[in-house]
Amino acid sequence: MRWKGLLETYRPYLPVNESTPLLTLQEGNTPLVRAENLSNELDLDLYFKYEGLNPTGSFKDRGMVMAVAKAMEEGSRTIMCASTGNTSAAAAAYAARGGLNCIVLIPNNNIALGKLAQAIIYGAKVIAIEGNFDRALEIVREITAKHPITLVNSVNPYRIEGQKTAAFEVCDQLGGAPDYLAIPVGNAGNITAYWKGFKEYYEKGKSRSLPKMIGFEAEGAAAIVRGEPIPNPETIATAIRIGNPATWKGAEAAAEDSGGQINFVTDDEILHAYKTIAAREGIFAEPASAASIAGVMKLKREGYFEKGQRVVCVLTGHGLKDPNIAIKSVAAEPVVVKDSEAAVMEAIRKLEG
Amino acid sequence: MRWKGLLETYRPYLPVNESTPLLTLQEGNTPLVRAENLSNELDLDLYFKYEGLNPTGSFKDRGMVMAVAKAMEEGSRTIMCASTGNTSAAAAAYAARGGLNCIVLIPNNNIALGKLAQAIIYGAKVIAIEGNFDRALEIVREITAKHPITLVNSVNPYRIEGQKTAAFEVCDQLGGAPDYLAIPVGNAGNITAYWKGFKEYYEKGKSRSLPKMIGFEAEGAAAIVRGEPIPNPETIATAIRIGNPATWKGAEAAAEDSGGQINFVTDDEILHAYKTIAAREGIFAEPASAASIAGVMKLKREGYFEKGQRVVCVLTGHGLKDPNIAIKSVAAEPVVVKDSEAAVMEAIRKLEG
Repeated sequence: MRWKGLLETYRPYLPVNESTPLLTLQEGNTPLVRAENLSNELDLDLYFKYEGLNPTGSFKDRGMVMAVAKAMEEGSRTIMCASTGNTSAAAAAYAARGGLNCIVLIPNNNIALGKLAQAIIYGAKVIAIEGNFDRALEIVREITAKHPITLVNSVNPYRIEGQKTAAFEVCDQLGGAPDYLAIPVGNAGNITAYWKGFKEYYEKGKSRSLPKMIGFEAEGAAAIVRGEPIPNPETIATAIRIGNPATWKGAEAAAEDSGGQINFVTDDEILHAYKTIAAREGIFAEPASAASIAGVMKLKREGYFEKGQRVVCVLTGHGLKDPNIAIKSVAAEPVVVKDSEAAVMEAIRKLEG
Repeated sequence: MRWKGLLETYRPYLPVNESTPLLTLQEGNTPLVRAENLSNELDLDLYFKYEGLNPTGSFKDRGMVMAVAKAMEEGSRTIMCASTGNTSAAAAAYAARGGLNCIVLIPNNNIALGKLAQAIIYGAKVIAIEGNFDRALEIVREITAKHPITLVNSVNPYRIEGQKTAAFEVCDQLGGAPDYLAIPVGNAGNITAYWKGFKEYYEKGKSRSLPKMIGFEAEGAAAIVRGEPIPNPETIATAIRIGNPATWKGAEAAAEDSGGQINFVTDDEILHAYKTIAAREGIFAEPASAASIAGVMKLKREGYFEKGQRVVCVLTGHGLKDPNIAIKSVAAEPVVVKDSEAAVMEAIRKLEG
């Protein structure tokens, strides 16, 4: 009854052979929570795939466990990435678990240490360069091409292999694919991975249908929707603040082949959805995660769905990943009253309205 | 294959009847991760019960889902607690899910909003009183005794009923009880709940043995070890900074009846363990959580265990709950180098040693 982690559970579908270490932090097996309140409101059969309950708090663990296991299989002693967020945390955790070194390259401009603290706690070594993020990624590519150091940024092909397991889980948890799979789109690797997973499960006869893939970029970073790279992308949803998605073509193919679409949502729509799922369903996700449900709300207003259709929204990371947005987005000061039962009861009655 | 949450999964062992709503955020079913690296080092068969992967990031969800479901069954429209931490987050999340109001009472002295942001995002209403924490709890008790508002602090008896399910899961995941169950002790409700759970599973024939319960207080809050309340408890492990545990007798009974013990660990031992499990096993837990593994390391040094004994350490909350401790406890500044392959490779070689 103990969950064995992704490599063992989905071994027949993954590039796992006899030499691949079955590395795991028991990633995956994340909740698929029915939106009991919002399903009624939106006339849908709505679910959240809550990826924030992966070990490091985001879906990145799925791809990283596969990438790091393959690095170990190939005899690598060190992995490397350019990242200031969820990727570096996942890389560092699996490197720690596997006994590898983890090097994180970042630009030396106003990096908030808070975002990197998780990677550092897992033992990653951070190097800042006098250059921007693109230059950091370039150097990672140069170094890993020449030295026995494994690149674990999203160009590592094993990342998508691991990430596709989320689609398997959705099918296993629902007893089949949903009508729609709604997902935030930043670098576009995740929508590509889900679509690959749904197709593989369908081809192997494990599900009897395919979902329509609907992906949502943030308005200020909507390169795919606009059809051109965005030089200076801006959105409060930092995890999808990407102006030139690495897997652009994969996202377009997923939307087109499945009969879905790539669309965008505004920061206001993202923040509204972020607060709504917490206050109405008790689910706290990263702002970027809320792009999926914000997109579903937008398409619902436009008459896109039929009544009762089954929609799964991917929530990519835990709300605790970005506590500052939570603090900023809620009214700051509590009501202060005297320390008497009467004073507190009066305040409660006012709050209850 | 979809996990149904605690009330449905462990229904025969819980106060769930036909009128009890099967409230859930799919809490429980948390990973039991083998400590692959530390097991060798400590000559133990060591596991972590990683409770930080509950929906709100701590074990509190187990007790709260039961308490809130019973409040709903009893027709309550509002729940209330005095808390500035994990309890208020769990209460607010389940209240949101169940459509109840949640009132959180706090003292109006230097409360860091960050600690409360999670509860507020879930929709809790916060009232600060001109008095201390004990006075806040007193007022909660007075109000909930007189009005149709349900108290969900740890004196609510359903909390322990829900929390005992963690012991069931440990047995189900291991195929039986471990030799030792190591657990942080603050208010002492959790060790009491685990022991109740282990006994019930044993009595019903679901496990063939009972573990020895070993509980660890923080040195500056070690009321049970010292045998008297601590007026001003101090420890960096805020989640167990409690000078007069509510379930004191329960903790003593668990230790005595099982042949275990209540002991304490220093803040240095807690921080060392906190960093060790992140950097060696890839597991990031709240500082208070690390009291369990710090305690096991201490007892190991004292020759307490036999080689190969099976020990489960409870990690009560996710490391992301307290990012400031993470930032403070790691070296602050990254190495800065030029943006060239050669400069970065030189830095890597130095870091690899």
